[in-house]
Amino acid sequence: MNRPIGIFDSGVGGLTVAAAIRKFLPNESFVYFGDTKHSPYGDKSDETIRNYSEEITRFLISQNCKAIVIACNTASALAYNYLVENHPDIPIINVVDPVVAHVGSKINNKVGIIATRATTKSDIYRKKLRRLNPKLHVAAAATPLLVTIVEEGFVNTKVSAGAIEAYLGVKKFSDVTTVILGCTHFPLLQKEIESFFGGRAEVVDSPELVAHHLKLQLQKAGLLSQETEANYHFYVSEKTDAFARTAKMFFGADIKLEEKTLRVNGF
Amino acid sequence: MNRPIGIFDSGVGGLTVAAAIRKFLPNESFVYFGDTKHSPYGDKSDETIRNYSEEITRFLISQNCKAIVIACNTASALAYNYLVENHPDIPIINVVDPVVAHVGSKINNKVGIIATRATTKSDIYRKKLRRLNPKLHVAAAATPLLVTIVEEGFVNTKVSAGAIEAYLGVKKFSDVTTVILGCTHFPLLQKEIESFFGGRAEVVDSPELVAHHLKLQLQKAGLLSQETEANYHFYVSEKTDAFARTAKMFFGADIKLEEKTLRVNGF
Repeated sequence: MNRPIGIFDSGVGGLTVAAAIRKFLPNESFVYFGDTKHSPYGDKSDETIRNYSEEITRFLISQNCKAIVIACNTASALAYNYLVENHPDIPIINVVDPVVAHVGSKINNKVGIIATRATTKSDIYRKKLRRLNPKLHVAAAATPLLVTIVEEGFVNTKVSAGAIEAYLGVKKFSDVTTVILGCTHFPLLQKEIESFFGGRAEVVDSPELVAHHLKLQLQKAGLLSQETEANYHFYVSEKTDAFARTAKMFFGADIKLEEKTLRVNGF
Repeated sequence: MNRPIGIFDSGVGGLTVAAAIRKFLPNESFVYFGDTKHSPYGDKSDETIRNYSEEITRFLISQNCKAIVIACNTASALAYNYLVENHPDIPIINVVDPVVAHVGSKINNKVGIIATRATTKSDIYRKKLRRLNPKLHVAAAATPLLVTIVEEGFVNTKVSAGAIEAYLGVKKFSDVTTVILGCTHFPLLQKEIESFFGGRAEVVDSPELVAHHLKLQLQKAGLLSQETEANYHFYVSEKTDAFARTAKMFFGADIKLEEKTLRVNGF
């Protein structure tokens, strides 16, 4: 099978997931869509996020994609069920379930979750973790400033250190054994957050878990690529300086952007 | 005259201007429009920002507004001329010109400007300052993280201190005598930035200058209110938690939000 995987996010964050897919599924091609025109999704309404996600999914399917990866925690929380219902014939992967499966099975876990305000408000991680393991201790915090800190290149500075301390140096996080980075920007802060906890907590690598989960799903559906070369396409709903500037930092390699206007009102 | 003033911004920032208008023109009513659905404008294209600004201006005129204040530096830079051309019969004020008039006349000024990336890229302050005073020494920097620091309530913390130091503790700003806060969020950082410069630089209070300029324009046009009571209406294109949460911090008083959908594609 030579059909690409469709990956989407509100912006650049999902490129950390795309990078993990490139690393762990090197034979798979993909089409990435960053909805830069409407980024960030974090403060949009549920309905708006569902509409944008639906329109992007239709676009990716029109590009002959064989599976869809929702590489955005906010859209995973608010649009996943809606998309699965609308598109029962294509595997759709979100970034929450693989992490929940990995973390939720460990009996003595005390789990800390940091995410955007919208993902935190959706309570998606806590709900899914508790469904798997009702005894799990879960603490969650919205840490929106960390998103901008990553996008603006303030990783490994006094600024990131100060924000991590302010957000994570609070009582409810003091005894966590696992930290879930519930935003696709946060893998870039993984080492700093690990250092902050001084080795006492596992900081979960979500993109890697998502890539492995995707591999299993493709295997199960007989959709794994038989090719030895992969092609990547990167579409954005609006070409922005921000995307061009930060894409390399998130993806770990140069990328060539294409602009794509979708049809719905709002695009 | 009892007609309101129309004020708009991409979000909450313009409320610092609204607050100054309330303080210095207490008899004036206003209608505020925060385009939260498309916030932030900083990374949008020029054309997109002009279209949004035009649609908002039409809405404010439909609300019987007697003057328009573009309380957003990005829209002031990219949409002001376009709006003036389209609406020659109504006074339109931007947030750049009053500051340029105040700063540009001082002969020995070395001016530092901090702003969003879009405003910095437009080079609007430097261009207008140089037109007024070709010998002026001007240094500018985009400081986008400061916007989020203010919105997320990290004013007066290690985080704001670290970011101010990283952005302003550089050679080109070392000998500035005046600092222009070229973003309507930054008045909330005014004291910290004054402290950073240890009294060596005047940090200009833009909202106050804009309010005084507006007063002069209304006087000139015979449009000053004769009422003793003022009414305020606050519209947003999408009700967001972010706006509700931070509005009070920017405006300095409680406000009641109304949602308003405009007609253009994209609203």
